[in-house]
Amino acid sequence: MPVKAIEWLGDKVRILDQTRLPHEEVYLELSYYQDIASAITELKIRGAPAIGVAAAYGVALGALEIKAKSRDDFLEKLRGVSQTLADTRPTARNMFRAIDRMQQLAQAGENIEQIKTALVNEAIKIHNEEAEATRKLSQLGAELIEDSSTILTHCNTGALATAGYGTALGVIKQAREQGKKLKVLATETRPLLQGARITAWELKKAGIPFALITDSMAGYFISRGEVNCVIVGADRIAANGDTANKIGTYTLAVLAKEHGIPFYVAAPTTTIDLSLASGTQIPIEQRSPEEVTHIQGISIAPEGIEAANPAFDITPHRYITAIITENGIIREPYIERLKRSNPQ
Amino acid sequence: MPVKAIEWLGDKVRILDQTRLPHEEVYLELSYYQDIASAITELKIRGAPAIGVAAAYGVALGALEIKAKSRDDFLEKLRGVSQTLADTRPTARNMFRAIDRMQQLAQAGENIEQIKTALVNEAIKIHNEEAEATRKLSQLGAELIEDSSTILTHCNTGALATAGYGTALGVIKQAREQGKKLKVLATETRPLLQGARITAWELKKAGIPFALITDSMAGYFISRGEVNCVIVGADRIAANGDTANKIGTYTLAVLAKEHGIPFYVAAPTTTIDLSLASGTQIPIEQRSPEEVTHIQGISIAPEGIEAANPAFDITPHRYITAIITENGIIREPYIERLKRSNPQ
Repeated sequence: MPVKAIEWLGDKVRILDQTRLPHEEVYLELSYYQDIASAITELKIRGAPAIGVAAAYGVALGALEIKAKSRDDFLEKLRGVSQTLADTRPTARNMFRAIDRMQQLAQAGENIEQIKTALVNEAIKIHNEEAEATRKLSQLGAELIEDSSTILTHCNTGALATAGYGTALGVIKQAREQGKKLKVLATETRPLLQGARITAWELKKAGIPFALITDSMAGYFISRGEVNCVIVGADRIAANGDTANKIGTYTLAVLAKEHGIPFYVAAPTTTIDLSLASGTQIPIEQRSPEEVTHIQGISIAPEGIEAANPAFDITPHRYITAIITENGIIREPYIERLKRSNPQ
Repeated sequence: MPVKAIEWLGDKVRILDQTRLPHEEVYLELSYYQDIASAITELKIRGAPAIGVAAAYGVALGALEIKAKSRDDFLEKLRGVSQTLADTRPTARNMFRAIDRMQQLAQAGENIEQIKTALVNEAIKIHNEEAEATRKLSQLGAELIEDSSTILTHCNTGALATAGYGTALGVIKQAREQGKKLKVLATETRPLLQGARITAWELKKAGIPFALITDSMAGYFISRGEVNCVIVGADRIAANGDTANKIGTYTLAVLAKEHGIPFYVAAPTTTIDLSLASGTQIPIEQRSPEEVTHIQGISIAPEGIEAANPAFDITPHRYITAIITENGIIREPYIERLKRSNPQ
């Protein structure tokens, strides 16, 4: 049985606390939208598709809680719920899209009870669609993976990141299920070690051969010809294909280009943001310096120093060999093909 | 007062235990060459020039301990001492050069007592020469640093790495002492965090403005045009200029090339190995996977997984803008100019 990152339990949401992995599998039951917001901020649930689903459930939970005198009062309060959820993290597209979709549905509803029911159903639908999209894109993407490949991946993009099958890691799992012989190099992904903690945990569970490496080792293995392709997920893809993803992704793209190996981005179309012309417009979350100066609570640097902590970087589209979506594998010219694949 | 990485105390050696930084300044007094060997293996003392000096003192300590029936017996036992020291770490050139120099001196000596005295004096001389070389190369290199620059550096290359003034960090300190306004971006340098633990500590002590970043953030800052040059040290430089340095260095060189900023290597000529035609011949130390799966004793990954841990990578000479040595700043064609600067 695959582990579930998030599950709807009728009047609450159950999530796996991803900050406790790999040593503890702790599930949290969240009954209030504020708890969903905190779980997203604190990365108890993370990964662009997964936080899209979590935010949708958050809006649904928030709606169920609302006591309103009128439809207008209800909608006003629901906007507050949505705003709290939207304020958690700025970069991943899927979350804003899910919240917008929930808001639009509410606006269209006739009375409070009907809207509440519709919102719960819509959140479940968003979850199912996202899961289905990752399953489909994984199948499509697996065709790009050659037999007997070594694949380098970054951060965590599996079932836990997507509340479904996975994006980059989904492609890898599908290729493996097709009988291809694979080895994965998984970067640890500092500062929060999603690769070491979560990808390694998922790969071990899936029985896929892999080695954990530090982020700084990617160049060593790529330069020795030991990597056949790089595949990563995405947090937001601009209209021209420029991609925001976990800090360190851009460096991997430059290394892939330098050595002539393919660099693939795998993401559901909910990650695509046609409203932004290029990656320079994507907001980059700056997180606490403590995530750099401390590892799992242990101080690794002198006290009182400055540390930077951009959580994402932008990979310009010219570095990207293909973007793997549930609607097909998209290549240059991205600007036309992304638009066609994703009529928003 | 600058901190001393290593100090000769007449019949023993005092080192600062660099594994305990930045939170504790613990000094160790080592009386036996085996303790020096362990200190090198365990990175209590590290950095190519510093372990060259440590190994020289190790040979001297070993020589003082030897009880021999004859000059031949003494030399035989001294070879054992040297072998133990040489077996500690394979990549850094300076150590082998220091040990060879001690061995040659011993071979040339006439009697045991005279050889012992000569070896002690030679180790002190190696230490003084290495310190003087790093001071000189730092002065020469500082000319390359423009005022109001942001400089990215990797690993630790200051007083502690060199038992002297520093290589890459020496250049930065000199530029600062010349009154240039500088900011440093210091990579944390996983797996053993020499940047976070030691470079941050030295920069803080020196009052040089800096920010700590994870290794994966270099691409972010370079791509935004926020870095004016990259400067690193070296563990071994082949005859053609190819440079072995801390894992992650090659990636920084590729990023510098991609963005057209200078990539400098700073090293005393004792790091140059004219016997190796190119970097492919430089042996790369593979260290314990536990250094990747654990940070300061804390497990960060699932139990029982595979992890790779190459401690160095090779940066081909075509990525290197200049090699800064005490005998001058060397540029292409390296093959002739390195030879001229360094008649071995």
